[in-house]
Amino acid sequence: MNTILDQIVKECREYTAKGHVATYIPQLAVADPNKIGICVVSHSGETYCAGDCFDKFTVQSVIKPLILLLALMDSGPEKVRALVGVEATGKPFDAFNYSDLALTGAHINPMINTGAIALCTLIHGESYDVKFARLLELTRKLAGNQEAELDRAVYLSEKKTGSKNRALVYMLKAYGMIDDPAEELLDCYFRACSILVSCRDLAQIANVFAHHGRDPLSGDRLFPKEFARYVNATLATCGMYDGSGEFALNVGFPAKSGVGGGIMGVIPNKMGVAAFSPALDKRGNSVAGIRMLERLSQSLELSIF
Amino acid sequence: MNTILDQIVKECREYTAKGHVATYIPQLAVADPNKIGICVVSHSGETYCAGDCFDKFTVQSVIKPLILLLALMDSGPEKVRALVGVEATGKPFDAFNYSDLALTGAHINPMINTGAIALCTLIHGESYDVKFARLLELTRKLAGNQEAELDRAVYLSEKKTGSKNRALVYMLKAYGMIDDPAEELLDCYFRACSILVSCRDLAQIANVFAHHGRDPLSGDRLFPKEFARYVNATLATCGMYDGSGEFALNVGFPAKSGVGGGIMGVIPNKMGVAAFSPALDKRGNSVAGIRMLERLSQSLELSIF
Amino acid sequence: MNTILDQIVKECREYTAKGHVATYIPQLAVADPNKIGICVVSHSGETYCAGDCFDKFTVQSVIKPLILLLALMDSGPEKVRALVGVEATGKPFDAFNYSDLALTGAHINPMINTGAIALCTLIHGESYDVKFARLLELTRKLAGNQEAELDRAVYLSEKKTGSKNRALVYMLKAYGMIDDPAEELLDCYFRACSILVSCRDLAQIANVFAHHGRDPLSGDRLFPKEFARYVNATLATCGMYDGSGEFALNVGFPAKSGVGGGIMGVIPNKMGVAAFSPALDKRGNSVAGIRMLERLSQSLELSIF
Amino acid sequence: MNTILDQIVKECREYTAKGHVATYIPQLAVADPNKIGICVVSHSGETYCAGDCFDKFTVQSVIKPLILLLALMDSGPEKVRALVGVEATGKPFDAFNYSDLALTGAHINPMINTGAIALCTLIHGESYDVKFARLLELTRKLAGNQEAELDRAVYLSEKKTGSKNRALVYMLKAYGMIDDPAEELLDCYFRACSILVSCRDLAQIANVFAHHGRDPLSGDRLFPKEFARYVNATLATCGMYDGSGEFALNVGFPAKSGVGGGIMGVIPNKMGVAAFSPALDKRGNSVAGIRMLERLSQSLELSIF
Repeated sequence: MNTILDQIVKECREYTAKGHVATYIPQLAVADPNKIGICVVSHSGETYCAGDCFDKFTVQSVIKPLILLLALMDSGPEKVRALVGVEATGKPFDAFNYSDLALTGAHINPMINTGAIALCTLIHGESYDVKFARLLELTRKLAGNQEAELDRAVYLSEKKTGSKNRALVYMLKAYGMIDDPAEELLDCYFRACSILVSCRDLAQIANVFAHHGRDPLSGDRLFPKEFARYVNATLATCGMYDGSGEFALNVGFPAKSGVGGGIMGVIPNKMGVAAFSPALDKRGNSVAGIRMLERLSQSLELSIF
Repeated sequence: MNTILDQIVKECREYTAKGHVATYIPQLAVADPNKIGICVVSHSGETYCAGDCFDKFTVQSVIKPLILLLALMDSGPEKVRALVGVEATGKPFDAFNYSDLALTGAHINPMINTGAIALCTLIHGESYDVKFARLLELTRKLAGNQEAELDRAVYLSEKKTGSKNRALVYMLKAYGMIDDPAEELLDCYFRACSILVSCRDLAQIANVFAHHGRDPLSGDRLFPKEFARYVNATLATCGMYDGSGEFALNVGFPAKSGVGGGIMGVIPNKMGVAAFSPALDKRGNSVAGIRMLERLSQSLELSIF
Repeated sequence: MNTILDQIVKECREYTAKGHVATYIPQLAVADPNKIGICVVSHSGETYCAGDCFDKFTVQSVIKPLILLLALMDSGPEKVRALVGVEATGKPFDAFNYSDLALTGAHINPMINTGAIALCTLIHGESYDVKFARLLELTRKLAGNQEAELDRAVYLSEKKTGSKNRALVYMLKAYGMIDDPAEELLDCYFRACSILVSCRDLAQIANVFAHHGRDPLSGDRLFPKEFARYVNATLATCGMYDGSGEFALNVGFPAKSGVGGGIMGVIPNKMGVAAFSPALDKRGNSVAGIRMLERLSQSLELSIF
Repeated sequence: MNTILDQIVKECREYTAKGHVATYIPQLAVADPNKIGICVVSHSGETYCAGDCFDKFTVQSVIKPLILLLALMDSGPEKVRALVGVEATGKPFDAFNYSDLALTGAHINPMINTGAIALCTLIHGESYDVKFARLLELTRKLAGNQEAELDRAVYLSEKKTGSKNRALVYMLKAYGMIDDPAEELLDCYFRACSILVSCRDLAQIANVFAHHGRDPLSGDRLFPKEFARYVNATLATCGMYDGSGEFALNVGFPAKSGVGGGIMGVIPNKMGVAAFSPALDKRGNSVAGIRMLERLSQSLELSIF
C-alpha cells in the first residue's frame, strides 16, 4: 500500500502547479502550493501515508460533515432535515442567489456554507463558545488526535474578511430560518473552519464514517449508524460542491473538500482516505487532491458505483 | 425473499392513494393508480416478484440511462461528456430556465430531459428511425425480453402535446449544442419514452448495470465496466431529479424514475431492483415506488453509503 | 432643422465603426454598416431628413409597438394586459430563463420577443396570413407609405434559423399561455419583422404615436388616445431592452429599436423621429442611432423627464 | 383644484381598506391605515391640499431620489453611474438573488435598496453622522421645511430588524463594490429612511425636481438640470419597483413610493404632487396613493406619454 501511495504522490505532484491557493482569505494565500500528501486508514485501523501527510492545514469546509453530525446527535434528524435540505443546488458553494422557494424548500444542503451555518444553530451549548468547544472535541475524538487546535491567524483573517458569509447569515435571518446573533454564530463558524488538521486526521475521521460510527480499533460506537448514512449520502450528492457529479463519475465515493486543500473520502465498510494539496481549481477543490483520489480509486477499485 | 416483497407491497399499498397519475400527457392519465408491483433480480439471476410485477407501463425517463449508455457505446465518453455535464441542476426535470453559462457549462445532465434529448444525437444510425430501433434493441437485450414494444397511443399523445420538450430542443439548437432536425429528434425521444416495460424488465436491466455490463446469467460482457460506472454514478447524483439527495439518504443506491410510475434501482455488485406504481409525487417520482424501495433497502441493508 | 440633422449625421458617422451588424440571421449580416440616416417629422407634418434617410431596412423589433397596437385595437386592453405584462424584465430581449412566476405574472412585456409573439394571437384574422396582411396594412397606413413590402430573403432567413423564437413559442404553449399552431404563428412574426421600412417611415409612425393616434396632417383619429398612451409608456420603460434605463437618462423619450438598425422615437405632443444605422451594440441597439438621438434630444431639448 | 383633490380623496378612501400597513418593521405596523391625503404644488409654488395632507409619516424609500441627488452633487454622474446602473431589475425592491453579472453590470439601480445603500458611500462627509446630517439638510431645503426630523422609534426598529438590508450590504462588500463599515453605513441608511415628512413636504420636493433643480418661488438654482433629469428618468423606469411599468401606463409620470405610505410624483415643467396612505399592496406601494395619482393624472391630463 505504501508503494502505491508513494507512486501516486510522485505522479500527481505536477498537478500542484495547475491550481492556485485560496486568496479570498489573506491568511490562506500564504499556503505553500507545493505541498502534497495522501493517507489511507484501513478497516483494521492501520495507517498508510505518503508525502506531506502530517503537515497541518485548516480544515475549512471539511468541518461541514462534522457540523452536520453534531447537529444530528444534538437535535435529531427531523429538526436537521426541517431546517436544511439535502439536494444539490447546481450553484457554487458560497452562492446567495437563491430564490425564496429554494431557501425555504429543499435546495440548500449541509455541504454549502448557507446550510452549514444554519446547522450550527442546532448544536447544543449555552453559548457559541461552548458549541465550538464541543465541535472541536468531536473533531479530536474522531481524528484520534487530542491536540487538534485552532489556527488563530486564519480564524482572525476569516473573521475580518468574511463578507459573503455575513451576507448569508443575514439572509438566513431575513427569511426567518435562524434567530441567533449573527456575529456569535459566524465566530463559531469561522473558528470551526480554522481548526488545524493533517491528512492523517482526516483519514481517521473518514474511517469512522466508513464504519458507520463505530471506532474501527476499539469497536466502540461513537454515533448511530443512521447518522453516518445521513452524512455519507449527503457527501456523495453534494460534498464536492458543483463538482460532485464529476467526482462521483471519476472517483466514486462520498467525499468532502475544503479550500485549505484537504479532501476527505469515505469508502463505506472499507476505509477512510484523505488527500492534501493547497492549489485549488475554480470550484475550490484541490487539483492534485482530486487526481490522487482518482488514481487511488482506480488502483484499489474503490468506486461504490 | 418473496415473503419480504409480499410484505412490502402489502404495507405500501396505502401510498398509491397519496399521489396522482401523470396528466400532462393525456394518455398517461388513464393509468390505474391502484397498480403496485416490485421485483428483485439477484446476483445469480433469480427473479423475485410481488404485486403487479408483470404489468406493462411506459418506460418514460427510465429510458434515460439507456440513452446515455448507447451514446457512450456509440460515441465514447469524451464526446458524451463534452456535450452534456454530470452535475445535478437543483431544478425540476423539465426546467428551461437555465442561464447561458449553465447550458454551455456542466449543469445539465443526462438524467434531465434537456440532457437526454441532446444525447440522442450521439446515438449512431443513418436516420432517427434507425437510432430508435437500436435503442429498442438495446432495451430488449438488457431486459432479456425480445417482446418489448412501443405503446403507440402514449407515443402519439406525447408527440401531440410535447411543447416543453419542443422548447428544450429549440433551446439546444439556439445555443448551437445540436444540429439535427427538431421533429425527427423529438420523434425518436417520444418513442423511446413510450416503450412498454414491466417491473421485471427494469429489474433485469438494473441487474446488468449492477454487474457493470456483464450478463449475470451467461457471464457475457454486454458493455464496458467504465460505462456502467458512468451510468450508475450519474443515477446516484441526478437520477431522482431534485429528489436525488433525499433518495440517497433514505434509500441509498443509484436509481431512475419515470412518470409512467416505474423506478429502477441498481445495487452495484449485488442486484437489480424495480418498483412500479403510477401515482406520482410533485417531483414526478412514484410515491409508493419510493416507499417500497425504502423498505427493501432497510430490510436487506442495500444502502451503499 | 436640416442643418442640425446634417451636423448630427456628420458628427455621429464615426460611431458606425463602433458596432457590428446583426449576424444571428444570415441575411442581416449582409447589411452595409456604413449606412447612417436620421429623420424628424414635425407637429405640422413636415419632414426633415439627413443621410441615408430613404434607405430601406427590415423593421425587426420596431414592429413590436404596432403588434401591441393592433392587439389593443382588436382585442382591447384588458385581454392584452391579461396575457402580457408591462414590466421591464432585467434580461436580454430573447432571454428564456424566466421562472414560472415571472411568465404567468407580470414580468414579460410587449417589447421583448416572448411578449410580442404572444400578442400576435390577439390580432384578429381567420388565418395568420390575414393577421399578417392586417399588420402590414396598419404599418403602411401609419407610415403613410402604401408601398411598404416584405423582404423575402430576410423573412426566409429568419424562418430557417429562428430556433430561439421557436423555443419561446413552445415555452408559451407549454405554460398554456397560447394555443395557436406554432409554425403559423412564427411565420406571421417572422414576416412582420421582415417588413422593409425607411427612417422616414418610422418617423411618420412615431409621429402618429406622438399625437396620440391622430394623423397630424388630416387630423383623422386613427386609434384611441389611450392605446397611444399604452404603447408610449411601454416604450419608455421597456422599448430599448435592458438599455431602456440608460436611454431614458441620456435621450429621454419613448423609443423602440430593432436589429435591422432602426430606432423610432416618440416625443409626445411634439414630433416623431427615427434614426438608422445597422451597426449594433451588445444589447442589439444601433450604436450610431442612439448617439444621433442623444444629440438631437440635447439640441432640441426633447427629454420628457 | 381643491375641489378636485377633495373629490379624489373622497372617491379613493375605500382603497385604504384594500391594502395592509407594512409589518416587516414593527414600528411601521402601528400606522393608522385609514389615513389618506394628497397635495399638489403648482408651477407658481401654490399648494393645494386634501385629506391628511399635513400628517407626518416616515419617508422610507422616497428618500432614494435624494440619496441619488446628493451622490450626484457630491461625486458627479460618472462615479454614480460607475457604481450603480439605471436599469429596472425585474425583481422586488429588496431582492438579493442577483447573479454576479447583474451586480457588477448595470442591473441594480438607485431606486432599489441595494443601489441606494451603495450610493450612500458617494455622499461626502468625514463620518456617516455628517453624511446623514447633510442628507437631512437637503431634505429640509427641498421640502422648504426646516423642521423635518427623525422618527427615532422607527429608526431604532429598522436598525434592530434590518436583516435583509444587512445581507445586501455584506453582499455589496463581498463583491468589492463598497468598502465602508457595514453598521455605520446601515445606520445612515436607516436614519435616512426614518425622516418624518408630510404629503406637502413630498410635493414640494417633487416640484423642485419638476422644475429641474430651480426653486419655483425664488428662482434659485438648487442643483444642475442634468441631475434632475438623471433622477426623473430613473424614477420613470424604476421608481415604483416592479410596478413601474404599470404605473407608467396608468398614471404616466416619474414617481417614487415608500413603505411609509407616501408617493411623490414629478410632472416635469409643471408641478409636484404627493399622495399618502399607509395601506400597501404586495409590491410595497400605497394602494390608495396609486389610485389617487391615477385619478389626478386623468383629471389634469398629467401623463407625459
